[in-house]
Amino acid sequence: MNASHHRKFEEVTLRTEPIFQGKIISLQVDTVQLPNGATATREIVKHPGAVAVLALTDDGRMLVVEQYRKPLEKSQIEIPAGKLDAGEDPLDAAKRELEEETGYRCESLRHISSFYTSPGFADEILHLYASEQLSKGEANPDEDEFLELEAITLEQAQAYMREGRISDAKTVMAVYAWQLYKLTGSF
Amino acid sequence: MNASHHRKFEEVTLRTEPIFQGKIISLQVDTVQLPNGATATREIVKHPGAVAVLALTDDGRMLVVEQYRKPLEKSQIEIPAGKLDAGEDPLDAAKRELEEETGYRCESLRHISSFYTSPGFADEILHLYASEQLSKGEANPDEDEFLELEAITLEQAQAYMREGRISDAKTVMAVYAWQLYKLTGSF
Repeated sequence: MNASHHRKFEEVTLRTEPIFQGKIISLQVDTVQLPNGATATREIVKHPGAVAVLALTDDGRMLVVEQYRKPLEKSQIEIPAGKLDAGEDPLDAAKRELEEETGYRCESLRHISSFYTSPGFADEILHLYASEQLSKGEANPDEDEFLELEAITLEQAQAYMREGRISDAKTVMAVYAWQLYKLTGSF
Repeated sequence: MNASHHRKFEEVTLRTEPIFQGKIISLQVDTVQLPNGATATREIVKHPGAVAVLALTDDGRMLVVEQYRKPLEKSQIEIPAGKLDAGEDPLDAAKRELEEETGYRCESLRHISSFYTSPGFADEILHLYASEQLSKGEANPDEDEFLELEAITLEQAQAYMREGRISDAKTVMAVYAWQLYKLTGSF
Protein backbone atom coordinates (compact mmCIF):
# COMPACT_ATOMS: atom_id res chain seq x y z
CA MET A 1 0.00 0.00 0.00
CA ASN A 2 1.19 3.47 -0.86
CA ALA A 3 1.64 5.33 2.43
CA SER A 4 0.41 8.57 0.87
CA HIS A 5 -3.08 7.04 0.63
CA HIS A 6 -3.29 7.45 4.38
CA ARG A 7 -2.85 11.20 4.22
CA LYS A 8 -5.37 12.09 1.51
CA PHE A 9 -7.44 15.10 2.63
CA GLU A 10 -5.51 15.13 5.90
CA GLU A 11 -6.98 17.21 8.72
CA VAL A 12 -4.17 18.76 10.75
CA THR A 13 -4.78 19.08 14.50
CA LEU A 14 -4.60 22.71 15.64
CA ARG A 15 -5.59 21.92 19.24
CA THR A 16 -7.10 19.17 21.34
CA GLU A 17 -9.57 19.80 24.16
CA PRO A 18 -9.81 16.86 26.57
CA ILE A 19 -13.43 16.52 27.76
CA PHE A 20 -13.73 13.25 29.68
CA GLN A 21 -11.62 10.33 30.83
CA GLY A 22 -13.74 7.33 31.82
CA LYS A 23 -13.21 3.70 32.70
CA ILE A 24 -13.77 2.55 29.13
CA ILE A 25 -13.82 5.53 26.79
CA SER A 26 -12.43 9.02 26.71
CA LEU A 27 -13.70 12.02 24.76
CA GLN A 28 -11.86 14.95 23.19
CA VAL A 29 -12.72 17.71 20.75
CA ASP A 30 -10.07 18.46 18.15
CA THR A 31 -9.94 21.67 16.17
CA VAL A 32 -8.55 20.82 12.74
CA GLN A 33 -7.36 22.58 9.61
CA LEU A 34 -9.16 21.25 6.53
CA PRO A 35 -7.53 20.73 3.12
CA ASN A 36 -8.92 24.11 1.95
CA GLY A 37 -7.42 25.95 4.95
CA ALA A 38 -10.72 26.37 6.84
CA THR A 39 -11.07 25.04 10.36
CA ALA A 40 -13.59 22.60 11.82
CA THR A 41 -14.08 20.67 15.06
CA ARG A 42 -14.12 16.89 15.44
CA GLU A 43 -15.69 15.09 18.40
CA ILE A 44 -13.57 12.01 19.04
CA VAL A 45 -14.19 9.03 21.33
CA LYS A 46 -11.09 6.98 22.19
CA HIS A 47 -11.60 3.29 22.92
CA PRO A 48 -9.05 0.52 23.71
CA GLY A 49 -10.30 -1.76 20.91
CA ALA A 50 -12.20 -5.02 21.14
CA VAL A 51 -12.33 -8.63 20.03
CA ALA A 52 -15.18 -10.98 19.11
CA VAL A 53 -15.38 -14.67 18.26
CA LEU A 54 -17.58 -16.61 15.85
CA ALA A 55 -17.35 -19.85 17.84
CA LEU A 56 -18.87 -22.89 16.11
CA THR A 57 -19.66 -26.07 18.02
CA ASP A 58 -19.12 -29.59 16.68
CA ASP A 59 -22.79 -29.79 15.69
CA GLY A 60 -22.58 -26.55 13.69
CA ARG A 61 -24.05 -24.05 16.13
CA MET A 62 -22.83 -20.56 16.96
CA LEU A 63 -22.26 -19.58 20.58
CA VAL A 64 -24.06 -16.39 21.58
CA VAL A 65 -24.69 -14.58 24.84
CA GLU A 66 -27.68 -12.46 25.73
CA GLN A 67 -26.94 -9.37 27.80
CA TYR A 68 -28.46 -6.01 28.64
CA ARG A 69 -27.03 -3.12 26.64
CA LYS A 70 -27.60 0.04 28.61
CA PRO A 71 -26.99 2.44 25.68
CA LEU A 72 -29.86 0.69 23.81
CA GLU A 73 -32.02 0.15 26.92
CA LYS A 74 -32.66 -3.44 25.87
CA SER A 75 -31.02 -6.84 25.89
CA GLN A 76 -29.29 -8.17 22.80
CA ILE A 77 -27.99 -11.53 21.60
CA GLU A 78 -24.37 -11.21 20.50
CA ILE A 79 -21.32 -13.31 19.82
CA PRO A 80 -18.80 -13.44 22.71
CA ALA A 81 -16.75 -10.24 22.75
CA GLY A 82 -14.93 -7.83 24.97
CA LYS A 83 -12.46 -5.02 25.27
CA LEU A 84 -8.72 -5.41 24.96
CA ASP A 85 -6.80 -5.11 28.21
CA ALA A 86 -3.88 -2.66 28.11
CA GLY A 87 -1.11 -4.09 25.93
CA GLU A 88 -3.01 -7.34 25.33
CA ASP A 89 -2.63 -9.22 22.05
CA PRO A 90 -6.02 -9.39 20.26
CA LEU A 91 -5.71 -13.15 19.73
CA ASP A 92 -5.11 -13.73 23.45
CA ALA A 93 -7.99 -11.39 24.27
CA ALA A 94 -10.31 -13.34 21.97
CA LYS A 95 -9.45 -16.63 23.69
CA ARG A 96 -9.86 -15.03 27.11
CA GLU A 97 -13.22 -13.42 26.35
CA LEU A 98 -14.59 -16.59 24.77
CA GLU A 99 -13.78 -18.61 27.88
CA GLU A 100 -14.88 -15.92 30.38
CA GLU A 101 -18.24 -15.40 28.69
CA THR A 102 -19.12 -18.92 27.50
CA GLY A 103 -17.00 -21.41 29.42
CA TYR A 104 -15.59 -22.73 26.15
CA ARG A 105 -11.90 -22.76 25.39
CA CYS A 106 -10.37 -22.73 21.90
CA GLU A 107 -6.81 -23.53 20.89
CA SER A 108 -6.72 -22.07 17.40
CA LEU A 109 -8.49 -19.03 16.00
CA ARG A 110 -8.68 -17.75 12.45
CA HIS A 111 -8.78 -14.02 11.80
CA ILE A 112 -11.88 -13.05 9.77
CA SER A 113 -11.55 -9.26 9.69
CA SER A 114 -10.74 -6.19 11.74
CA PHE A 115 -12.96 -3.17 11.35
CA TYR A 116 -13.58 0.27 12.82
CA THR A 117 -17.06 0.27 14.28
CA SER A 118 -17.80 3.97 13.82
CA PRO A 119 -14.96 5.88 12.16
CA GLY A 120 -16.86 9.18 12.07
CA PHE A 121 -16.57 9.73 15.83
CA ALA A 122 -14.66 6.83 17.42
CA ASP A 123 -11.32 5.05 17.00
CA GLU A 124 -12.66 1.68 18.24
CA ILE A 125 -11.39 -1.27 16.19
CA LEU A 126 -12.92 -4.72 16.52
CA HIS A 127 -10.96 -7.86 15.66
CA LEU A 128 -13.26 -10.70 14.58
CA TYR A 129 -12.06 -14.32 14.78
CA ALA A 130 -13.54 -17.74 14.04
CA SER A 131 -13.01 -20.97 15.91
CA GLU A 132 -14.28 -24.47 15.27
CA GLN A 133 -12.31 -26.45 17.86
CA LEU A 134 -13.92 -25.82 21.20
CA SER A 135 -13.32 -27.61 24.48
CA LYS A 136 -14.85 -27.20 27.92
CA GLY A 137 -13.25 -24.49 30.07
CA GLU A 138 -14.67 -22.35 32.83
CA ALA A 139 -16.99 -19.36 32.52
CA ASN A 140 -15.98 -16.33 34.56
CA PRO A 141 -17.86 -13.16 33.56
CA ASP A 142 -16.90 -9.72 34.88
CA GLU A 143 -18.59 -8.87 38.16
CA ASP A 144 -20.90 -6.33 36.48
CA GLU A 145 -21.69 -8.66 33.55
CA PHE A 146 -24.86 -10.80 33.43
CA LEU A 147 -25.02 -13.21 30.51
CA GLU A 148 -27.10 -16.09 29.20
CA LEU A 149 -25.41 -18.55 26.86
CA GLU A 150 -27.11 -20.17 23.85
CA ALA A 151 -25.87 -22.23 20.89
CA ILE A 152 -27.89 -21.45 17.75
CA THR A 153 -28.15 -22.62 14.16
CA LEU A 154 -27.71 -20.29 11.18
CA GLU A 155 -31.48 -20.33 10.67
CA GLN A 156 -32.04 -19.29 14.30
CA ALA A 157 -29.46 -16.52 13.93
CA GLN A 158 -31.27 -15.22 10.84
CA ALA A 159 -34.60 -15.37 12.69
CA TYR A 160 -33.10 -13.41 15.60
CA MET A 161 -31.86 -10.83 13.08
CA ARG A 162 -35.37 -10.45 11.63
CA GLU A 163 -36.73 -10.04 15.18
CA GLY A 164 -34.12 -7.43 16.11
CA ARG A 165 -32.71 -9.57 18.92
CA ILE A 166 -29.43 -9.81 16.98
CA SER A 167 -28.65 -6.33 15.67
CA ASP A 168 -25.11 -5.31 16.45
CA ALA A 169 -22.40 -4.87 13.83
CA LYS A 170 -20.05 -7.65 14.95
CA THR A 171 -22.77 -10.31 15.26
CA VAL A 172 -24.49 -9.43 11.97
CA MET A 173 -21.02 -9.47 10.38
CA ALA A 174 -20.29 -12.88 11.93
CA VAL A 175 -23.58 -14.28 10.60
CA TYR A 176 -22.73 -13.03 7.08
CA ALA A 177 -19.22 -14.49 7.37
CA TRP A 178 -20.66 -17.82 8.58
CA GLN A 179 -23.10 -17.87 5.64
CA LEU A 180 -20.25 -17.14 3.20
CA TYR A 181 -18.15 -19.85 4.87
CA LYS A 182 -20.94 -22.38 4.33
CA LEU A 183 -21.30 -21.34 0.67
CA THR A 184 -17.64 -20.96 -0.27
CA GLY A 185 -15.67 -22.98 2.29
CA SER A 186 -13.56 -20.02 3.38
CA PHE A 187 -13.80 -16.88 5.48
CA MET B 1 -41.20 -11.09 19.49
CA ASN B 2 -41.87 -11.43 23.20
CA ALA B 3 -41.43 -7.99 24.75
CA SER B 4 -39.95 -9.48 27.92
CA HIS B 5 -36.85 -10.45 25.92
CA HIS B 6 -35.98 -6.77 25.87
CA ARG B 7 -35.80 -6.52 29.65
CA LYS B 8 -33.63 -9.52 30.45
CA PHE B 9 -30.92 -8.53 32.95
CA GLU B 10 -32.29 -4.98 32.91
CA GLU B 11 -30.06 -2.28 34.40
CA VAL B 12 -32.21 0.33 36.11
CA THR B 13 -31.00 3.93 35.90
CA LEU B 14 -30.37 5.41 39.34
CA ARG B 15 -29.00 8.71 38.01
CA THR B 16 -27.67 10.27 34.82
CA GLU B 17 -24.74 12.67 34.74
CA PRO B 18 -24.63 14.73 31.54
CA ILE B 19 -20.99 15.23 30.50
CA PHE B 20 -20.94 16.76 27.02
CA GLN B 21 -23.33 17.98 24.33
CA GLY B 22 -21.63 18.34 20.96
CA LYS B 23 -22.64 18.98 17.36
CA ILE B 24 -22.83 15.25 16.59
CA ILE B 25 -22.62 13.22 19.77
CA SER B 26 -23.39 13.69 23.43
CA LEU B 27 -21.95 11.83 26.40
CA GLN B 28 -23.47 10.87 29.74
CA VAL B 29 -22.54 8.58 32.61
CA ASP B 30 -25.40 6.55 34.05
CA THR B 31 -25.29 4.92 37.45
CA VAL B 32 -27.30 1.72 37.23
CA GLN B 33 -28.65 -0.97 39.49
CA LEU B 34 -27.59 -4.42 38.28
CA PRO B 35 -29.80 -7.54 38.43
CA ASN B 36 -28.04 -8.62 41.67
CA GLY B 37 -28.71 -5.25 43.34
CA ALA B 38 -25.15 -3.94 43.04
CA THR B 39 -24.48 -0.66 41.27
CA ALA B 40 -22.23 0.13 38.32
CA THR B 41 -21.59 3.04 35.97
CA ARG B 42 -22.14 3.05 32.21
CA GLU B 43 -20.46 5.54 29.86
CA ILE B 44 -22.95 6.25 27.09
CA VAL B 45 -22.52 8.11 23.80
CA LYS B 46 -25.74 9.30 22.16
CA HIS B 47 -25.77 9.59 18.37
CA PRO B 48 -28.60 10.55 15.97
CA GLY B 49 -28.20 7.39 13.85
CA ALA B 50 -26.86 7.01 10.34
CA VAL B 51 -27.53 5.56 6.91
CA ALA B 52 -25.30 3.95 4.27
CA VAL B 53 -25.86 2.75 0.71
CA LEU B 54 -24.42 -0.17 -1.23
CA ALA B 55 -24.89 1.54 -4.63
CA LEU B 56 -24.19 -0.70 -7.64
CA THR B 57 -23.67 0.75 -11.11
CA ASP B 58 -25.01 -0.78 -14.33
CA ASP B 59 -21.61 -2.39 -14.96
CA GLY B 60 -21.57 -4.02 -11.52
CA ARG B 61 -19.34 -1.68 -9.58
CA MET B 62 -19.83 -0.33 -6.07
CA LEU B 63 -19.66 3.41 -5.43
CA VAL B 64 -17.20 4.37 -2.69
CA VAL B 65 -15.78 7.62 -1.39
CA GLU B 66 -12.38 8.18 0.11
CA GLN B 67 -12.24 10.62 3.01
CA TYR B 68 -10.07 11.49 5.98
CA ARG B 69 -11.26 10.04 9.27
CA LYS B 70 -9.88 12.17 12.06
CA PRO B 71 -10.50 9.59 14.85
CA LEU B 72 -8.31 7.11 12.90
CA GLU B 73 -5.81 9.76 11.68
CA LYS B 74 -5.97 8.29 8.19
CA SER B 75 -8.14 8.28 5.10
CA GLN B 76 -10.53 5.42 4.43
CA ILE B 77 -12.54 4.15 1.47
CA GLU B 78 -16.18 3.72 2.47
CA ILE B 79 -19.62 3.39 0.96
CA PRO B 80 -21.64 6.64 0.88
CA ALA B 81 -23.08 7.32 4.33
CA GLY B 82 -24.11 10.03 6.71
CA LYS B 83 -25.99 11.00 9.82
CA LEU B 84 -29.75 11.29 10.03
CA ASP B 85 -31.06 14.84 10.24
CA ALA B 86 -33.50 15.46 13.11
CA GLY B 87 -36.78 13.65 12.39
CA GLU B 88 -35.56 12.46 8.99
CA ASP B 89 -36.77 9.14 7.57
CA PRO B 90 -33.78 6.78 7.10
CA LEU B 91 -34.80 5.98 3.51
CA ASP B 92 -34.90 9.68 2.60
CA ALA B 93 -31.57 10.21 4.37
CA ALA B 94 -30.00 7.37 2.37
CA LYS B 95 -31.13 8.91 -0.94
CA ARG B 96 -29.95 12.37 0.18
CA GLU B 97 -26.52 11.18 1.33
CA LEU B 98 -25.97 9.11 -1.81
CA GLU B 99 -26.62 12.11 -4.04
CA GLU B 100 -24.71 14.61 -1.88
CA GLU B 101 -21.61 12.44 -1.67
CA THR B 102 -21.54 10.80 -5.11
CA GLY B 103 -23.73 12.82 -7.47
CA TYR B 104 -25.83 9.72 -8.14
CA ARG B 105 -29.54 9.60 -7.52
CA CYS B 106 -31.56 6.46 -6.85
CA GLU B 107 -35.32 5.99 -6.99
CA SER B 108 -35.66 2.72 -5.12
CA LEU B 109 -33.66 1.31 -2.25
CA ARG B 110 -33.79 -2.08 -0.60
CA HIS B 111 -33.16 -2.40 3.12
CA ILE B 112 -30.29 -4.83 3.84
CA SER B 113 -29.99 -4.51 7.61
CA SER B 114 -29.93 -2.09 10.52
CA PHE B 115 -27.32 -2.58 13.19
CA TYR B 116 -25.91 -0.93 16.28
CA THR B 117 -22.29 -0.07 15.58
CA SER B 118 -21.00 -0.31 19.16
CA PRO B 119 -23.70 -1.29 21.66
CA GLY B 120 -21.30 -1.40 24.62
CA PHE B 121 -20.92 2.38 24.76
CA ALA B 122 -23.04 4.01 22.02
CA ASP B 123 -26.65 4.00 20.83
CA GLU B 124 -25.74 4.68 17.18
CA ILE B 125 -27.78 2.62 14.72
CA LEU B 126 -26.83 2.35 11.07
CA HIS B 127 -29.41 1.56 8.39
CA LEU B 128 -27.82 -0.14 5.38
CA TYR B 129 -29.57 -0.07 1.98
CA ALA B 130 -28.82 -1.35 -1.52
CA SER B 131 -29.61 0.29 -4.85
CA GLU B 132 -29.05 -0.87 -8.39
CA GLN B 133 -30.92 1.81 -10.33
CA LEU B 134 -28.74 4.88 -10.36
CA SER B 135 -29.13 8.04 -12.41
CA LYS B 136 -27.04 11.18 -12.64
CA GLY B 137 -27.80 13.82 -9.99
CA GLU B 138 -25.63 16.49 -8.43
CA ALA B 139 -22.90 16.06 -5.81
CA ASN B 140 -23.06 18.50 -2.90
CA PRO B 141 -20.85 17.46 0.02
CA ASP B 142 -21.00 19.26 3.38
CA GLU B 143 -18.69 22.27 3.59
CA ASP B 144 -16.26 20.45 5.90
CA GLU B 145 -16.35 17.22 3.85
CA PHE B 146 -13.65 16.37 1.28
CA LEU B 147 -14.35 13.27 -0.78
CA GLU B 148 -13.02 11.36 -3.77
CA LEU B 149 -15.46 9.13 -5.64
CA GLU B 150 -14.53 5.75 -7.13
CA ALA B 151 -16.54 2.86 -8.63
CA ILE B 152 -14.92 -0.48 -7.80
CA THR B 153 -15.40 -4.16 -8.58
CA LEU B 154 -15.89 -6.80 -5.88
CA GLU B 155 -12.30 -7.94 -6.43
CA GLN B 156 -11.02 -4.38 -5.91
CA ALA B 157 -13.13 -4.06 -2.76
CA GLN B 158 -11.61 -7.29 -1.40
CA ALA B 159 -8.11 -6.05 -2.28
CA TYR B 160 -8.80 -2.75 -0.45
CA MET B 161 -9.94 -4.80 2.56
CA ARG B 162 -6.69 -6.78 2.56
CA GLU B 163 -4.74 -3.49 2.33
CA GLY B 164 -6.71 -1.90 5.18
CA ARG B 165 -8.02 0.90 2.96
CA ILE B 166 -11.55 -0.47 3.47
CA SER B 167 -11.91 -1.30 7.16
CA ASP B 168 -15.07 0.17 8.61
CA ALA B 169 -18.04 -1.91 9.77
CA LYS B 170 -20.63 -0.65 7.28
CA THR B 171 -18.39 -1.06 4.21
CA VAL B 172 -17.07 -4.50 5.20
CA MET B 173 -20.71 -5.48 5.88
CA ALA B 174 -21.75 -4.13 2.45
CA VAL B 175 -19.00 -6.12 0.73
CA TYR B 176 -20.14 -9.31 2.51
CA ALA B 177 -23.77 -8.56 1.57
CA TRP B 178 -22.75 -7.93 -2.06
CA GLN B 179 -20.83 -11.23 -2.14
CA LEU B 180 -23.86 -13.07 -0.70
CA TYR B 181 -26.11 -11.33 -3.23
CA LYS B 182 -23.90 -12.56 -6.08
CA LEU B 183 -23.93 -16.11 -4.68
CA THR B 184 -27.59 -16.39 -3.65
CA GLY B 185 -29.44 -13.71 -5.63
CA SER B 186 -30.83 -12.02 -2.53
CA PHE B 187 -29.77 -9.70 0.29
